[in-house]
Amino acid sequence: MDIVAQMKKFVEPKSVALIGVSREPMITHGIIVDVLTNLINCGYQGKIYPIHPQASEIKGLKTYATIADAPEDIDSAVINLPRDLIPGIVKECVNKGIKAITIATQGFADANDDQGKQLQREIDDAIKGTDARILGPNSLGTANAYIPFSSSFWETQMEKIPVGLVCQTGVFFTSLAGLKVGKIIDLGNGSDVHFSDGLAYFKQDAETKVVGLHVEGMRDAATFLKQASRVAHKKPVVVLKTGRSERAARAVQSHTGSLVGKDEVWDVALKQAGVIRVGDVEEFSDMLRAFYVLPLMKGGKIGIVTGSGGVGIMGIDACQKSGLEVAKLSSATIKRLSALTPSWQDVGNPIDIWPAVMVARKASLFEVLRTATKTFFDDPGVNGVLCMFDTRLPAFGVEFYQLVEEAAKSHSDKPLVFYLHGAFANEAKNKLEETNKTLVFPSPERAMRALRHLADYSEFRASCENW
Amino acid sequence: MDIVAQMKKFVEPKSVALIGVSREPMITHGIIVDVLTNLINCGYQGKIYPIHPQASEIKGLKTYATIADAPEDIDSAVINLPRDLIPGIVKECVNKGIKAITIATQGFADANDDQGKQLQREIDDAIKGTDARILGPNSLGTANAYIPFSSSFWETQMEKIPVGLVCQTGVFFTSLAGLKVGKIIDLGNGSDVHFSDGLAYFKQDAETKVVGLHVEGMRDAATFLKQASRVAHKKPVVVLKTGRSERAARAVQSHTGSLVGKDEVWDVALKQAGVIRVGDVEEFSDMLRAFYVLPLMKGGKIGIVTGSGGVGIMGIDACQKSGLEVAKLSSATIKRLSALTPSWQDVGNPIDIWPAVMVARKASLFEVLRTATKTFFDDPGVNGVLCMFDTRLPAFGVEFYQLVEEAAKSHSDKPLVFYLHGAFANEAKNKLEETNKTLVFPSPERAMRALRHLADYSEFRASCENW
Repeated sequence: MDIVAQMKKFVEPKSVALIGVSREPMITHGIIVDVLTNLINCGYQGKIYPIHPQASEIKGLKTYATIADAPEDIDSAVINLPRDLIPGIVKECVNKGIKAITIATQGFADANDDQGKQLQREIDDAIKGTDARILGPNSLGTANAYIPFSSSFWETQMEKIPVGLVCQTGVFFTSLAGLKVGKIIDLGNGSDVHFSDGLAYFKQDAETKVVGLHVEGMRDAATFLKQASRVAHKKPVVVLKTGRSERAARAVQSHTGSLVGKDEVWDVALKQAGVIRVGDVEEFSDMLRAFYVLPLMKGGKIGIVTGSGGVGIMGIDACQKSGLEVAKLSSATIKRLSALTPSWQDVGNPIDIWPAVMVARKASLFEVLRTATKTFFDDPGVNGVLCMFDTRLPAFGVEFYQLVEEAAKSHSDKPLVFYLHGAFANEAKNKLEETNKTLVFPSPERAMRALRHLADYSEFRASCENW
Repeated sequence: MDIVAQMKKFVEPKSVALIGVSREPMITHGIIVDVLTNLINCGYQGKIYPIHPQASEIKGLKTYATIADAPEDIDSAVINLPRDLIPGIVKECVNKGIKAITIATQGFADANDDQGKQLQREIDDAIKGTDARILGPNSLGTANAYIPFSSSFWETQMEKIPVGLVCQTGVFFTSLAGLKVGKIIDLGNGSDVHFSDGLAYFKQDAETKVVGLHVEGMRDAATFLKQASRVAHKKPVVVLKTGRSERAARAVQSHTGSLVGKDEVWDVALKQAGVIRVGDVEEFSDMLRAFYVLPLMKGGKIGIVTGSGGVGIMGIDACQKSGLEVAKLSSATIKRLSALTPSWQDVGNPIDIWPAVMVARKASLFEVLRTATKTFFDDPGVNGVLCMFDTRLPAFGVEFYQLVEEAAKSHSDKPLVFYLHGAFANEAKNKLEETNKTLVFPSPERAMRALRHLADYSEFRASCENW
């Protein structure tokens, strides 16, 4: 069976059988841990077949005593049962012709006993020679904000963003770094469905513009890298590779039973594959957003517009720390900026526009800021612009909204990003990010780091086209 | 005159003359840029003497035509006038016996013309041989949330936090990285009052527990380092040293006219001085808070409590990236933890307590989390604890509040910090930080980096005592 068609049964199921449901919603310590409840609550429109040995109806849905009793043509099954029962249930699913089977249960390769490993072998045998695939065990399965659908027994934080995640922990279902779930595949122990399958799905998925991977380890890194690189030729792939040290590698072993490999090797290999490696959850979130909100940057020359000389210097530091260049301005740009600024001011990049605001007679504060920013955009030697301002007025976000829209229109290949501070920074950030055309970062360093990745990936894509 | 007494006239003035006030509040583009308005609005209780050539009263305050006409015994003067007038006004202040003179005006060493330099020389001459001191030019002066007082023509974001800042840009008056101002001294061009003066003041100031420095450059780095080290023997000194590259150094020159020096030399020198160097505004803010909220950490062995194996692995990565150690647990700790967890689980550090929650029959979710965390605290081989949880319930912050209070009481020398994610992360963060005994960080890396600084500084202080 075609791998994409198969993965669609996991990520976009038209019907799903839930095996291991209870009459009353399962609640632990006040937290709902119930697949059926969460699936209904998230608004799933497909068919749900709850399997229960005694009940005839749960939550208004007809139930079936066994999977064999359920209707035909079920896309997907989600199993939440004690581990001893799993191999038998998997066989029943296979016999029913179900091609996409998610196992949430823990205690297989992730357990420290022999029984877990034995049960895993039995599961492997159950699907051997068939075209059924297993997601997990120890997996929350998938979620898809676009249908919507979630097989997680925990509530999933979903939003229709064009980000596809493949993870080795279910914790990404809960907006780990402030980013909700567009589409997600939790590999769990990854006994069968693995990164290559998730990558194949997201490569062709039109709703996915950026692919994010949380990688702890795997058996076949070479195949993974080849697959990831193939996707990276088409859309950005951002990787949070954890388990860097030997100490962490041991923990990975007991978390998902995966092998880790030397971290430095991963560094080089991922770079060669054209994949963007990030260092932590904050950078992961920054880059997934950056790649779907901002245009790629065709070069590393940055224009810096600021309202403070001191912050401008931080901007230079951040620029050079990220390996970017402070753009040399054209004489036309210098001339246009000089018309705004008092005669005693050295005009250059960064430009501190506060003195210009102070001497502006007719123009408003925001006109001056916008004129300066536009001037930078018009300079052919500037590939992207970082604006760093003190948000003294509540109107800041509203006033700059228009500029963001205009810049995105007139210079659609140049990213515009912000570092905002002061009294109205949060309000301004929220307003500006509503455009879906800019991002506001919490430091000059985070802004420049994101721009650097945009430049690197742009270069990678250009090199692919030249092959 | 004693330097501390002198600096008190700047930071804790009982009376202040404002030179360069207008009858109506000065407003540019809707922003108040008026010292008098902001000083009154901030709630200053000392005496204000506005100087104005014609007016007899402004905002209900009696005004004086010249500084000579004002009453005697004025602690401080703040000058906002065109640069040509400054040398003459400074002379008048000196003649009046004012010892603390702030010059807000720009266009001296920071200007690109000869006139600015000439005017600076005249100012220098005006105070030569007197015991009057100049703060600035190009300085917002000082602010002090404890009196309260602010000489800034911009509104200052103040809060009574035990942080003293000495900066080379006024932008720190506006909560640059989410941290408001406790006490601040803006050196501006630093023509006279410099870091050594600010350090002398904050060293002895009982309201200041942590000193933060924003350093662009200076003429006499050796004296600075000696002074900073002396303060570091008594309280933590956190330095954001900007202007790292040659490109940035040129910008510093035109910003405040300071010399910069090689960045690598600063790195080594600051470390030797026992000063904590940070890389960006986020780390600056993290560390200023960490040092007044958390206890120093007597060693680098960290206990990691989490609700997710995958996040635990990120915790190990972050721990080792910061040069800290994942603590080896005592057999007593293992035993206590094993009593909570299912038999198939490998018990160690990090501990994933979710399986324990799932098997807990009588204990509540929060009891399990708290028991696990306390067990880590009781282990003598653990110097600090990072808790990383998914905040699935709104009660999270409330439930953990008590644990934070207890841990701070029973183990006052061990910092407890959090990385929280999921639906109620913000609410929980706000609630927990109300204790003033813990901090919630936005990533495991930021948490571990802060703990590392706490350990390093603890080691430095211990080494001082052994001298």
